[in-house]
Amino acid sequence: MRRIEVRSAAGTYPIMLGADVFTQAGSLVLELGFRRGTKVTIITDDTVASLPFADTVLTSLDEAGFVTQTLTVPAGDSSKSMDMAIDLYRGLLKFGMRRSDLVVALGGGVVGDLAGFVAATYLRGIAFVQAPTTLLAHDSSIGGKVGINLPEGKNLVGAFYPPRAVLYDLSALRYLPVRQWTNGMAEVIKHGIIANPELFANLEAKPLTECPLPDTLEPILAAAIQVKVDVVQADERESGRRQVLNVGHTIGHAIEQRSHYQLGHGEAISIGMVLETKLAQARNLLAQADALRIVSVLEAHGLPVRTPADEFSELRGLIDVDKKHGSALWTFALPVAIGDVRVVSDVRPEEVEAVYVQSLRAAVRCQGHKLT
Amino acid sequence: MRRIEVRSAAGTYPIMLGADVFTQAGSLVLELGFRRGTKVTIITDDTVASLPFADTVLTSLDEAGFVTQTLTVPAGDSSKSMDMAIDLYRGLLKFGMRRSDLVVALGGGVVGDLAGFVAATYLRGIAFVQAPTTLLAHDSSIGGKVGINLPEGKNLVGAFYPPRAVLYDLSALRYLPVRQWTNGMAEVIKHGIIANPELFANLEAKPLTECPLPDTLEPILAAAIQVKVDVVQADERESGRRQVLNVGHTIGHAIEQRSHYQLGHGEAISIGMVLETKLAQARNLLAQADALRIVSVLEAHGLPVRTPADEFSELRGLIDVDKKHGSALWTFALPVAIGDVRVVSDVRPEEVEAVYVQSLRAAVRCQGHKLT
Ligand SMILES: NC(=O)c1ccc[n+]([C@@H]2O[C@H](COP(=O)([O-])OP(=O)(O)OC[C@H]3O[C@@H](n4cnc5c(N)ncnc54)[C@H](O)[C@@H]3O)[C@@H](O)[C@H]2O)c1
Ligand SMILES: NC(=O)c1ccc[n+]([C@@H]2O[C@H](COP(=O)([O-])OP(=O)(O)OC[C@H]3O[C@@H](n4cnc5c(N)ncnc54)[C@H](O)[C@@H]3O)[C@@H](O)[C@H]2O)c1
Ligand SMILES: [Zn+2]
Ligand SMILES: [Zn+2]
Repeated sequence: MRRIEVRSAAGTYPIMLGADVFTQAGSLVLELGFRRGTKVTIITDDTVASLPFADTVLTSLDEAGFVTQTLTVPAGDSSKSMDMAIDLYRGLLKFGMRRSDLVVALGGGVVGDLAGFVAATYLRGIAFVQAPTTLLAHDSSIGGKVGINLPEGKNLVGAFYPPRAVLYDLSALRYLPVRQWTNGMAEVIKHGIIANPELFANLEAKPLTECPLPDTLEPILAAAIQVKVDVVQADERESGRRQVLNVGHTIGHAIEQRSHYQLGHGEAISIGMVLETKLAQARNLLAQADALRIVSVLEAHGLPVRTPADEFSELRGLIDVDKKHGSALWTFALPVAIGDVRVVSDVRPEEVEAVYVQSLRAAVRCQGHKLT
Repeated sequence: MRRIEVRSAAGTYPIMLGADVFTQAGSLVLELGFRRGTKVTIITDDTVASLPFADTVLTSLDEAGFVTQTLTVPAGDSSKSMDMAIDLYRGLLKFGMRRSDLVVALGGGVVGDLAGFVAATYLRGIAFVQAPTTLLAHDSSIGGKVGINLPEGKNLVGAFYPPRAVLYDLSALRYLPVRQWTNGMAEVIKHGIIANPELFANLEAKPLTECPLPDTLEPILAAAIQVKVDVVQADERESGRRQVLNVGHTIGHAIEQRSHYQLGHGEAISIGMVLETKLAQARNLLAQADALRIVSVLEAHGLPVRTPADEFSELRGLIDVDKKHGSALWTFALPVAIGDVRVVSDVRPEEVEAVYVQSLRAAVRCQGHKLT
């Protein structure tokens, strides 16, 4: 088991990473300073609840002397709602959870964000532990962002609320459907692009198209996690450096929304990374060779790299750019090398449009080609 | 105008206290670093919205170049609900409020708690300024506690989320109904008991049974506020010292609930302070002379001091005590002198019952006496 420390304004917390974390969940929580007899509510979704490791976690906590209950929400992003949060508050109240008790979020990013938000706001905040079970959650469980959706949009309500620990058992990942796996890899690749050229080169040399054994996975995920940790430590509340994490997301989010979430998050940001790579190239910020490497590593992982058939005008209003007061210029985090990203704040929408239209034409050509 | 600084983990914020704060709201917000053109949403209730100073605030913000809107909720504690929070999120979204924009909570503790919670969670937290307009809000607007109620109980959902500033215009207080005034005085007196014997002595010498001119009020409120500031600075997240603020509240909350909120908060904690004073006396922690002074200053301010006719068994389950794991002992913050409070964690419920029953008998005797 590997331990990575994260410094946050609210104190330091450990990420425990390995093949055998969940069997030790109980003792790890004791080590955090929670006493036997503390009430622990596991919040999970119904898919995860039916997988064998859910029982492992529960048993381990029970055997360590915690007083446990499990609250289960339906799997899927629609559970990240205020209604579900209210149900959970009531579940915590009924169980008599007090300020000194603990919530464990067992599941993917949905459960982590929802349970984290509930923990952040129940009785003005009680402790919670992230127990991520998806590949994407190597990203979402770190950095303290928690939240829920409103009908108007995703993640509109939330908080910055770091967990007390992240217990990441890599053996849980073998149950992931392949599309979940592929989507999660988009973020692993992103972390390589942002700050770790060796990680990127490893993924090029040996694409992870499916879940490998924990021993193989551990160093790769540790490297990806470390990138995220370094960034959020430098800027916990997203006022500067943290913007580099937006690589691929500025355009990717728009594509994801425009697809009405038919594209997975990783799929959409894969396309976003391709387009933003081209934007970086067009600005002479990135060498062509590096641009090609980015596109090709995404493709090698089974991620989509072609622009979908939307007109730019359909995306424009959805592009999630930080418009400075009164300015018409857009902010992007653009790759400037494999392992380096720069935030640029003077992008004209027309530049983005030009890159987009060109990619769109190329995509249409390719598809035509394929058909023949 | 007087300035009191509050240090918090999230940075230092000023409390601006005086007779002429609202006319300068715009320039004060500029001084906080918000630029002209920033969107500002004033959240208030319909009673406050109809009072002349509401317009003063709005005009001052408009004239300083902010882009403003006002969102109004019905007056009363039932507005501290999740439904109302959701309405407000939507109002902020519709107005296009972003992370860099500002919420101003203009009103009493209800508006401050609700708008503060919305600000704490909208887009994972945007800035807010408290503009308190009640006497009780000298307490509630400071210390960063924000929150809403659930049907199961008050303040069950919330956060610790300090404001960027507290703009406290004492001239607004003259519009307060007398019962609101009296209820607020209970907290002013409490602050004297906790840490300021001179403040207490001033209130003894000249009871404030109604709102005096700002010049008279300013030093008194400044003293009460400073007590709260010192306590929350020492313990922002209520893990220790902050418990001293619970004087009167441990029993008072139970009495407030048991009255089904027919008693005002200040009225209930006044009775709570009397009972907890007697508990302190029974434990030989407080001299009789001081106990008498406490009861008499509350009475002089028109606050109730007699135990209502509930049996102890009806209150027992409502008493809001910090039961340590497995222990049957209760924690109280008890006055040990005028200006000093001690947290004791070894109170047996029977001790509380004995004090309560005795007071109840005395109250009944008094009432009998009155009738003859
Ligand atoms: N907080 C952040 O910083 C952050 C960052 C990125 C994404 N997110 C959020 O994360 C969410 C997406 O996360 P996600 O992809 O993990 O989604 P998810 O939690 O919905 O999990 C995806 C699916 O996989 C199932 N699942 C979970 N673990 C499994 C396992 N071990 N084996 C088999 N199936 C399993 C789940 O039941 C679900 O059906 C989004 O809501 C997004 O907004 C948050
Ligand atoms: N956050 C904290 O630390 C904290 C501390 C104590 C109390 N509280 C909360 O504060 C709330 C009670 O505060 P409150 O007593 O100010 O209640 P309130 O906000 O409901 O105000 C009381 C009434 O006075 C009206 N009003 C406000 N300003 C006025 C003015 N200047 N002139 C005339 N009328 C005016 C309001 O419309 C309302 O009807 C409760 O919800 C309580 O939980 C919070
Ligand atoms: Zn992402
Ligand atoms: Zn109070």
